[in-house]
Amino acid sequence: MKIETPNPLQWHFSERAMQMQSSFIREILKVTQQPEIISFAGGLPSPATFPVEVMQQAFDKVLADSGKTALQYGPTDGYMPLRQWIADSLSQNGARIAPEQVLMVSGSQQALDLIGKVLIDEGSKVLVETPSYLGALQAFSVYRPEFQSVETDEHGLVPSSLERIGAGARLLYALPNFQNPTGRSLSVERRQELVETCARLNLPLIEDDPYGALSYKGQPSPKMIAMNPDGVIYMGSFSKVLTPGIRLGYVVAPLPMVRRLELAKQAADLHTAQLTQMVVHEVVKDGFLDQHIPTIRELYGKQCKAMLDAMDEHFPASATWTRPEGGMFIWVTLPQHINAMELLDAAIQHKVAFVPGSPFYANEPETNTLRLSFVTVSPERIRQGIGILGKLIKERL
Amino acid sequence: MKIETPNPLQWHFSERAMQMQSSFIREILKVTQQPEIISFAGGLPSPATFPVEVMQQAFDKVLADSGKTALQYGPTDGYMPLRQWIADSLSQNGARIAPEQVLMVSGSQQALDLIGKVLIDEGSKVLVETPSYLGALQAFSVYRPEFQSVETDEHGLVPSSLERIGAGARLLYALPNFQNPTGRSLSVERRQELVETCARLNLPLIEDDPYGALSYKGQPSPKMIAMNPDGVIYMGSFSKVLTPGIRLGYVVAPLPMVRRLELAKQAADLHTAQLTQMVVHEVVKDGFLDQHIPTIRELYGKQCKAMLDAMDEHFPASATWTRPEGGMFIWVTLPQHINAMELLDAAIQHKVAFVPGSPFYANEPETNTLRLSFVTVSPERIRQGIGILGKLIKERL
Repeated sequence: MKIETPNPLQWHFSERAMQMQSSFIREILKVTQQPEIISFAGGLPSPATFPVEVMQQAFDKVLADSGKTALQYGPTDGYMPLRQWIADSLSQNGARIAPEQVLMVSGSQQALDLIGKVLIDEGSKVLVETPSYLGALQAFSVYRPEFQSVETDEHGLVPSSLERIGAGARLLYALPNFQNPTGRSLSVERRQELVETCARLNLPLIEDDPYGALSYKGQPSPKMIAMNPDGVIYMGSFSKVLTPGIRLGYVVAPLPMVRRLELAKQAADLHTAQLTQMVVHEVVKDGFLDQHIPTIRELYGKQCKAMLDAMDEHFPASATWTRPEGGMFIWVTLPQHINAMELLDAAIQHKVAFVPGSPFYANEPETNTLRLSFVTVSPERIRQGIGILGKLIKERL
Repeated sequence: MKIETPNPLQWHFSERAMQMQSSFIREILKVTQQPEIISFAGGLPSPATFPVEVMQQAFDKVLADSGKTALQYGPTDGYMPLRQWIADSLSQNGARIAPEQVLMVSGSQQALDLIGKVLIDEGSKVLVETPSYLGALQAFSVYRPEFQSVETDEHGLVPSSLERIGAGARLLYALPNFQNPTGRSLSVERRQELVETCARLNLPLIEDDPYGALSYKGQPSPKMIAMNPDGVIYMGSFSKVLTPGIRLGYVVAPLPMVRRLELAKQAADLHTAQLTQMVVHEVVKDGFLDQHIPTIRELYGKQCKAMLDAMDEHFPASATWTRPEGGMFIWVTLPQHINAMELLDAAIQHKVAFVPGSPFYANEPETNTLRLSFVTVSPERIRQGIGILGKLIKERL
């Protein structure tokens, strides 16, 4: 039955496939998953926060009550009661979001892919923060845009800089809350200025918001989509407030845009599992997140403080870093001559890991930067790891 | 807080987005979902076959035993024990498939999207059967190929016709078992000829196989990937043998190809839910499908026979149709002057629905064809609906 073929296939890949690269972070994670390594490299939420029993009960209930429906094919746009819940939760400060504006997706990475598919042609100008989220750069890259980095300062993206470079761009991608990788948040004033500027420049503003609920003080900032529902594409996720492994996110956009995204999703994977959507609705509909999210905030806030305290003690004065008030990341800027990639090699020798900053830049990387995550490491191991890192940095001064 | 914007955004969509169209079938399904309509239009498996309790127990067990792992982010390529199970089940007739060749995807529609992403540039020649699966045409269309229809006869795709048109094509997409939409299967000889010809022409052969297990007589045909693992990209799915709503499929390919697909998947949605993969592994690992699939075969076989019997009785001699030995569909060819789209309008007036054949053609449609599905309709309603359809067709002779 087996057929003798002359030679193995000579693959002719598409041009976009030839330039695809694996996420640098995923490659680092493979190296740093040994338990003896103190890893600040991860971007995973802490499994200590996963409400396993609550999820288990919800799966049980949904399968018992509506198993046949939950396990059948479902609509591309998603499970309506959950879309309604999301629309209601985003209808803030006088804005009205309709459930028809909500498209359920298989994690917000899929939203990035669909947005790229629908808005980016080869060579299109795409604006991103400096630095920006690596997963977004990776998703958009598939559609071969020209990235342009938007100026940022210690308060995040500088809206006025768009005046020079915004015209004709297909989109601006921004993470206004506890940004990955910097941990920075935009002030209310900057948000307003950003929304106004984008509207004036006819520039679709992508508001990616996985961490917005994780403010340690419990005071979420106003959302840009509520400031201008006609000009903002909002991306949300259950990954950081519930669990990431179920792969459930959503994108909220004006109807003409959400309709295109839905067509793109239909061709990409038909729909996201109904069962998952029904289970999450079962979990969130009576306010579970209102009790649950504060426990995540408390854990991450405590560990963030432990890391900042240890950095104050062990890092040299010539290094600077962000002091996030929420989320999962701290961003470090070392003296310019220190290369974070080289530092990583040394750190791994000493059983400590982090992510060098270069991969987060769309254009010229700042090689003296790095990202630290504190969420999956105990305060004790944080102090230990930061002590080692501080010593290695000082040796390089 | 709400910002006054001068005018709603004038969105600049990508060229690929401007030509996206909703699946015609999904549009028909919206019309035909009223319970009073006898619908042969669906492509959904029968919910009567969903093993809800077995799934429920498996969710319970996986969440109880390994909840934190199941709910965390997972690897892009998938859950290794399930990949191993799939590789073993495909290692037939002397072929050896390694688990590293298996990439788990969010339903096989995602495999189509990823294959298109990785193999198709704008204007690339892509070969499909005449007619072909609509979801594949839709997925590949996003990457803007030039489709070329490969000749088929009553035994399915004609391999020798590739000699004329195969050179330089990026892929050939084929559904060898109980094809959607025709219900036709390729003979073993044609499979061998097809595999040989593709290997000689250096043409990647996509073997899409959602229905292979649904042979009514219980005798699955040999798989083309087992004939030449170096030249075939195999797509499998749990949708038709377990449940579709969990969105779980897989693609099996030579390592250089599977590596590209994995990179594309990483950018598209990071990974498919670990929980789902662990649950499906829990369900299938001890041979559940060996008892379960025969019950699906029996149900579909009985309903297929009821439809064929009713067609023999009610359809005019000038119509012809396929007599499938498995799967979910019958394909009807009417006398040339009858337009199936017009027939559908009339049928819906009489509370019967089906899918006209035109959307399944990549190039020139045969407007006198239609697809009938029997899997979600009882034998009694099948007889009733076919009686009405037969009358409407005869009125048009």
